[in-house]
Amino acid sequence: MAEITIKDIANLCGVGVSTVSRAINNHPDINPETKQMIMQVIKEHDFVPNNSARNLKRVEANSIAVLAKGITNPMFTDMIKVFEEETMKRKYSLVLHHVESRENEVDVALELVKEKRLRGIIFLGGCFTHSEEKLRRLKVPFVFSTIGAGPEKLNENSYSHVSVDDRKESERMTEYLISLGHRDIAIIAAKCEDLSVGSLRLQGYQDALRKHDMPYREELIGHLEDTLPEYSMINGYQVTKKLIASGVHFTALYAIADVLAIGACRALREAGYRIPEDVSVAGYDGIELGEYFYPRLTTIRQPVEDMAMATIDQLFDILEGEKEHKHLTLEGSLEIKESTSAVS
Amino acid sequence: MAEITIKDIANLCGVGVSTVSRAINNHPDINPETKQMIMQVIKEHDFVPNNSARNLKRVEANSIAVLAKGITNPMFTDMIKVFEEETMKRKYSLVLHHVESRENEVDVALELVKEKRLRGIIFLGGCFTHSEEKLRRLKVPFVFSTIGAGPEKLNENSYSHVSVDDRKESERMTEYLISLGHRDIAIIAAKCEDLSVGSLRLQGYQDALRKHDMPYREELIGHLEDTLPEYSMINGYQVTKKLIASGVHFTALYAIADVLAIGACRALREAGYRIPEDVSVAGYDGIELGEYFYPRLTTIRQPVEDMAMATIDQLFDILEGEKEHKHLTLEGSLEIKESTSAVS
Repeated sequence: MAEITIKDIANLCGVGVSTVSRAINNHPDINPETKQMIMQVIKEHDFVPNNSARNLKRVEANSIAVLAKGITNPMFTDMIKVFEEETMKRKYSLVLHHVESRENEVDVALELVKEKRLRGIIFLGGCFTHSEEKLRRLKVPFVFSTIGAGPEKLNENSYSHVSVDDRKESERMTEYLISLGHRDIAIIAAKCEDLSVGSLRLQGYQDALRKHDMPYREELIGHLEDTLPEYSMINGYQVTKKLIASGVHFTALYAIADVLAIGACRALREAGYRIPEDVSVAGYDGIELGEYFYPRLTTIRQPVEDMAMATIDQLFDILEGEKEHKHLTLEGSLEIKESTSAVS
Repeated sequence: MAEITIKDIANLCGVGVSTVSRAINNHPDINPETKQMIMQVIKEHDFVPNNSARNLKRVEANSIAVLAKGITNPMFTDMIKVFEEETMKRKYSLVLHHVESRENEVDVALELVKEKRLRGIIFLGGCFTHSEEKLRRLKVPFVFSTIGAGPEKLNENSYSHVSVDDRKESERMTEYLISLGHRDIAIIAAKCEDLSVGSLRLQGYQDALRKHDMPYREELIGHLEDTLPEYSMINGYQVTKKLIASGVHFTALYAIADVLAIGACRALREAGYRIPEDVSVAGYDGIELGEYFYPRLTTIRQPVEDMAMATIDQLFDILEGEKEHKHLTLEGSLEIKESTSAVS
């Protein structure tokens, strides 16, 4: 079977090629009945407009880019799935772009918009502190997702965001461990110079200690390894091994991500500790895996689905002309499972 | 600061707008020194070509689409990361598209190519049996990744593929369980009408039984639930609960994906079984999580990185003019960990 061309379709319909092109491209300037007839003929002949056909005005390829920092975090996979479904519904495609931890995601975005037919950008993970001048240069609508406002606040009118209150949620988790009688609570956290949710979660831990008149002890802080993916099991494993090797005493270990907590459990088991009898372990995020892990992981559950939907809504509001930036903080929930218990 | 336009850049450089456009778009028809000068001025003035600038011929947005079926499988996340890095290196963007289990991915692809500026397609997961006529209609180069050839073989010249030999690897795992003395080996498998790797893995299990003169017993087969994501922990959990409730006796449980095995472990533990003392559990895929799970999961490791790289290589070979379709079968490896032991 010879391949059918747009010209053949035009001949079959008794119209010009440009009319067929208008029908295919949903151009408003065409008689609806003519359009229907053309689409019917196209369908009957299984005609697929050829990419390289020069005589065919292409539909604009509208796409939304997700710039994900820390793709090793399964929480992001769930969010990306929602982004993809929702952008599809709106006839956009989703371009996925991983940002390395060393890269500045706004710089990456400024590069991307040069090359791509982007209509919007979702920053997933990453820093909350950016140069306002750089953000102004980003002419494509964007939303920060899962990233709250940092200590050095940007002007609220320079960006939109959806996240939980990472500092408050982290304080809640730490207070829960304190309520169980734990006094030596180690934490796996980001480095001090970190400007992402990592430092907010570390601050929440400090807030709780302060509230309960407990000292902040540097030796209880396990900082993530530079050389490994930030939010990964292997990183939690390595940091915990170092903590154990340092000889510091702790009865609870709070990791600022579930994947880190899972890595930590492996290191603790290898060193002969039982969970939670010897050491309570808590995570953060509420990924599905924590529910299937043994023991089930106590965690702060982030409302993944709601956060993803709200991100999309904010972005499309801007695309549809909304001028004001919005800031949405959703509630997390403390999920008490089997990996934590009262200090013995 | 007023926004700088392409006209301003042209004036600053003493050239026409079309010359600036050629410089930006890497057009070959421009003096290299002129181009360098223009790019320098663009850089100094932080000029970002505006999406809506009508006087600027846009760079073609070349993109590669990944049509992923079963995104709940973390193995795919690792592969997508490699796809994204490698397409970026080649100045393409990666469009991510999830295919629902009920959808036919080739139909989805035929729809996608109508709308998007796609240069290539990677089918990740999904069926291996497609209408050759439909594949012929797909004018964009494509590669099947992680999907081997099925029993009803397509003409090898109608597609390219990269995968392990799922049937053989599955036979290897089953034989390993048999070598441990297990005779009642349950399996969590796809449904009989399944035309994806699921049925190949079930066939490998049958091959091993046959080889050792063991009967194939329908009551030992736990079929995946229709209503749940195929390769998910929750599905493994539900199927195992049903198997246990059926009262059938088994000393080993082989799940055709690690995520299913992890769900199965939860169901077994809830029913009071110890792993591996009471029931040995084995998975398939070799995801990182299996290594951190307790007990560590015995599995067939797929060479994820190599498969992803080979997929990209095949696709770009076709894009660069290679006419012959290629078929690459990589070796998996049996990883014996802690979740399996000799029958007691």
